Amino acid sequence: MQIACGQFQVYPGEIEKNKTKILGLMADAKANNIQILLLPELCLTGYLLGDLWEELDFLEEAEEAGESIRQHTNADFAVVFGNIALDSQNIGENGRIRLFNSAWVAWNQNWVSNDPIGTYHFPKVLMPNYREFDDSRYFYDLRKLALAQKIDIQDALKPITLFSKSIGISICEDGWGEDYGLQPIDILGRQNLDYILNLSCSPFTLGKESKRNRVFAKFANKWNAPLFYCNCTGVQNNGKTVFGFDGASAIYLPNGDVATAKKYQEVLWDGKTHQKLSPHTEMDSIGMHLIFCTQNFMASAGLKRVTIGASGGIDSAVAAALFTQVLGPENVLLVNMPSKFNSHTTISLAEKLAKSLGTWYTSVSIEDSASLTKKQIHGLTINRKSECKILELTDFHLENVQARDRSSRVLSAVGCGFASVFSCNANKAETTVGYSTLYGDHGGFLAPLADLWKDKVYALGRWFQQKYGLSIPEGIFTIVPSAELSAKQDVDKDEGDPFHYEYHDKLFQSWIEKWNRATPTSLLEHYQTGSLPEYLGLPHSIEHYFPSTKAFVEDLERWWRCFKGMGVVKRVQAPPVIAITKRSFGFDYRESILPVVFSQKYIRLKKEILGK
Amino acid sequence: MQIACGQFQVYPGEIEKNKTKILGLMADAKANNIQILLLPELCLTGYLLGDLWEELDFLEEAEEAGESIRQHTNADFAVVFGNIALDSQNIGENGRIRLFNSAWVAWNQNWVSNDPIGTYHFPKVLMPNYREFDDSRYFYDLRKLALAQKIDIQDALKPITLFSKSIGISICEDGWGEDYGLQPIDILGRQNLDYILNLSCSPFTLGKESKRNRVFAKFANKWNAPLFYCNCTGVQNNGKTVFGFDGASAIYLPNGDVATAKKYQEVLWDGKTHQKLSPHTEMDSIGMHLIFCTQNFMASAGLKRVTIGASGGIDSAVAAALFTQVLGPENVLLVNMPSKFNSHTTISLAEKLAKSLGTWYTSVSIEDSASLTKKQIHGLTINRKSECKILELTDFHLENVQARDRSSRVLSAVGCGFASVFSCNANKAETTVGYSTLYGDHGGFLAPLADLWKDKVYALGRWFQQKYGLSIPEGIFTIVPSAELSAKQDVDKDEGDPFHYEYHDKLFQSWIEKWNRATPTSLLEHYQTGSLPEYLGLPHSIEHYFPSTKAFVEDLERWWRCFKGMGVVKRVQAPPVIAITKRSFGFDYRESILPVVFSQKYIRLKKEILGK
Repeated sequence: MQIACGQFQVYPGEIEKNKTKILGLMADAKANNIQILLLPELCLTGYLLGDLWEELDFLEEAEEAGESIRQHTNADFAVVFGNIALDSQNIGENGRIRLFNSAWVAWNQNWVSNDPIGTYHFPKVLMPNYREFDDSRYFYDLRKLALAQKIDIQDALKPITLFSKSIGISICEDGWGEDYGLQPIDILGRQNLDYILNLSCSPFTLGKESKRNRVFAKFANKWNAPLFYCNCTGVQNNGKTVFGFDGASAIYLPNGDVATAKKYQEVLWDGKTHQKLSPHTEMDSIGMHLIFCTQNFMASAGLKRVTIGASGGIDSAVAAALFTQVLGPENVLLVNMPSKFNSHTTISLAEKLAKSLGTWYTSVSIEDSASLTKKQIHGLTINRKSECKILELTDFHLENVQARDRSSRVLSAVGCGFASVFSCNANKAETTVGYSTLYGDHGGFLAPLADLWKDKVYALGRWFQQKYGLSIPEGIFTIVPSAELSAKQDVDKDEGDPFHYEYHDKLFQSWIEKWNRATPTSLLEHYQTGSLPEYLGLPHSIEHYFPSTKAFVEDLERWWRCFKGMGVVKRVQAPPVIAITKRSFGFDYRESILPVVFSQKYIRLKKEILGK
Repeated sequence: MQIACGQFQVYPGEIEKNKTKILGLMADAKANNIQILLLPELCLTGYLLGDLWEELDFLEEAEEAGESIRQHTNADFAVVFGNIALDSQNIGENGRIRLFNSAWVAWNQNWVSNDPIGTYHFPKVLMPNYREFDDSRYFYDLRKLALAQKIDIQDALKPITLFSKSIGISICEDGWGEDYGLQPIDILGRQNLDYILNLSCSPFTLGKESKRNRVFAKFANKWNAPLFYCNCTGVQNNGKTVFGFDGASAIYLPNGDVATAKKYQEVLWDGKTHQKLSPHTEMDSIGMHLIFCTQNFMASAGLKRVTIGASGGIDSAVAAALFTQVLGPENVLLVNMPSKFNSHTTISLAEKLAKSLGTWYTSVSIEDSASLTKKQIHGLTINRKSECKILELTDFHLENVQARDRSSRVLSAVGCGFASVFSCNANKAETTVGYSTLYGDHGGFLAPLADLWKDKVYALGRWFQQKYGLSIPEGIFTIVPSAELSAKQDVDKDEGDPFHYEYHDKLFQSWIEKWNRATPTSLLEHYQTGSLPEYLGLPHSIEHYFPSTKAFVEDLERWWRCFKGMGVVKRVQAPPVIAITKRSFGFDYRESILPVVFSQKYIRLKKEILGK
């Protein structure tokens, strides 16, 4: 039996383009004597489409495209592909025409029927509704259908027979039933399978591949049948969050062997050419993924150039290296925007960076504009009836004036002049606590680094050097990170951001990425029992970072207030983030704007700890 | 039997505050010889909390607060209230501790048990997963539990007996089973009920109340039992979208009578004081709701003042009237920001507006700053290796420079000086097609008018005049709407926005608010059959608005491209919107950034219509 995975780049929302690619893959498969071509989940439409799933015209076009795929099969050649299925006789729980996320099996120009439920498609059983997934918002599932038809789910799932082989079909989450009390692949497995197929549209997350390898290899072994996993490549988004798909289609054999297709590439792949896994570090995964996502996100929007505010610090330098790698140095413009608070050190580092990367460079002072704003607003008279008042701007206000001047005035206009967009260089630590200015450094068309903690940003800078020879001046790695918005933030005196990144990276990470997310309450509990450094993964004791318990608690409360307060307000208006970790801001980690509240338990613990 | 609804303002995320309010209501109820106090769904925690539902500390505090409510009941006094329930022995489908959105019945300091499923709480059966709702993301439901326990859902739902009466309990969506193939209230109704209770946390939507009255009155009549519907008041949000809760608790009697509690007010209400319905227009509903939401959204964030960019046009004038009503004129500052393109007409209207509303007023010219930006960027040299290039700004770029200068430079700084935030005055038509500048007029802390079409903004202006005597100068109603960003947008020559609002309001509305959302394809179909004016609700034929079919099609494509293209990109970074209609931007209408594609069917239709 010849089965091949058609791993290809799915363009979300572009049915005609995807159909053309699929027909091309089918022609190749036929030429290569493939009997069954396995394609990814929802490979005609894409997956992360938001409420486009409610547009009937779009859905009907997808069904029609499915029909032309069917017509290109023959007696020796079948296709198993993911597409929606519409049941216009029934409504879904959202009150709209019932919609399924299904596998379709076309053979000899016919649809293979799904006898237990009387359809010509094989609906997904399990609906992920966590992280970026909203399946139950759009799709009716096999569990609900079985219930409505009064069939036991065990009886609703049967293998199909194709070329005299017994084949079990599953879609993405159907391979991950552990939390659902229901393992569709086990139900199928008990019915004697020759092959197990899994059609996926599974976004990359750091660490997911090795977990999938464990889970899927177990099925192949347990049911003594090879498992073919076909995933797409490409980039899809949910508005606030950009997800990349690395492909990494794989074949799991009963004896434990795993073959993996080339990542991020389009391949018609039957398992015979196994990807040689060169030594592959975590930073390789991150770097490759960022390059792939940035490239494709820009390409799909028709964007070819970028302008970057280059401060002389690490975040903008790494962003510059990334865009240089993606677009070529001739399409990248670095702009340094000094005020009187910017040191010669950082200005010179920014210029050196442009030279070493080979990008365009210019400098635009914000001094005159910041002065003009101060002159116009500080001391401005406002009137009401017969009253008048004089407005005053504090030093803090004037810091934000500078940040906004840089992005909303200079970068926006320079970006236009360069026929480009401009980037947001924020890292995840800043993003967590909103250490940025709205319409200032918070702005940009994309925040490619906003799912990376500060330590990872440094590491990524090294990686770009080693991997691609994109040289970032050494001073950028060693200088203290600083916003340089006031005389108190002097890099030459080592005066920088109010973070001790070694500690705060880990603290903030515990609020977002730990499975049971840390809160001030659980952190104080760990502090009380002395287990906090281990819990957070710190190299030193808490006393290393804080002179007193009081200082530790004050710092904790300060940043928690920022995280849950203005941090949320700012994230609501933030640019899209490229997702890397198991919890990224935006549509993955959904937030309401709420008052910052400390729990009753926290208040008790704090009293105990501080002894009042 | 004495049953009362405790309709009160729920503060999302503030368990302790809500608990205190509930204990107060309970004391009042006891003093008034109430036997059963009915409270809203999730009234300790709030409902729209985003992924705060995943924080175990928060959930445990909610359970603990529920215990103190139980302790305040006695043999003569029971409480039925909404709270979460944790089942730490089992996991939910998100892999976390299983969480229910439940009703709890406390009587004589005990929990009344839910015998069919062996719990002390009554889980919600139906999970809304549409619009702003994400129930299945967080909650396990009774359908899943019954399935897991192998009980038929019909047997899992039993009335309880309290004070010798048979009472059926339902939570919000459980009263709206039509689309689920399952009506929990009917299942309960068949078992002989004396009373039906519905605990809700149901956000306001224009038109929802009359639909609810029809649906709920039918249950009361069908099962010959009074139905008590208890809803909360307050404001909750999902980050991008702000929802108000109007209360409007009601009692539906079997004979068809309906009594409604006072809207937006906290009341302990037994149906005896029926709200006198004064003549109530659609604009009353909208106006009251906007005032309530704006007030509470600001109060919960501790915001007391607002700065408004006053252009002399209708949007900013209505925003000014709204904030004046909410905060008082002494807390509102109008800023006119003229450039050389602003007419004396609009400048003078802005000033008159401040006078007539009694707010603060000032004027800050953007001329010097816009000139400085032009001088710095237009003609700026950028360098790369030995090359150099000169950047140029077009007139269009310079229009955006002005818009950003107004918001990111002037309003932001003036806002700081006035100790305030600044508002985004965008209406829904502009928001739909992204007719705004990012970091310019698109910015602000809240966009209160962004769910209102232009005609409604005008009507709301009149309403503020009539209802509250907030006088908006007549010229603001009659002047042509214009951005005044170039010499070509001269209001004195009637040169304004590129919209014919009478037509475009309706066109854009069909893309968002129609149940089966209109697309270019369906619009061309209607055009072809001559039914388009009726379909859109236009007072005139299409020929009235366009000189030719070609012009109609070009206009359609132009705005569709904006809506699906840059419109989405801008909305990703937009401020929160107050939801009014049945589909508002943000978390209600979820969007991915996708290339703009016209369907194959559209392309065929267009060829037919244009004859090529």
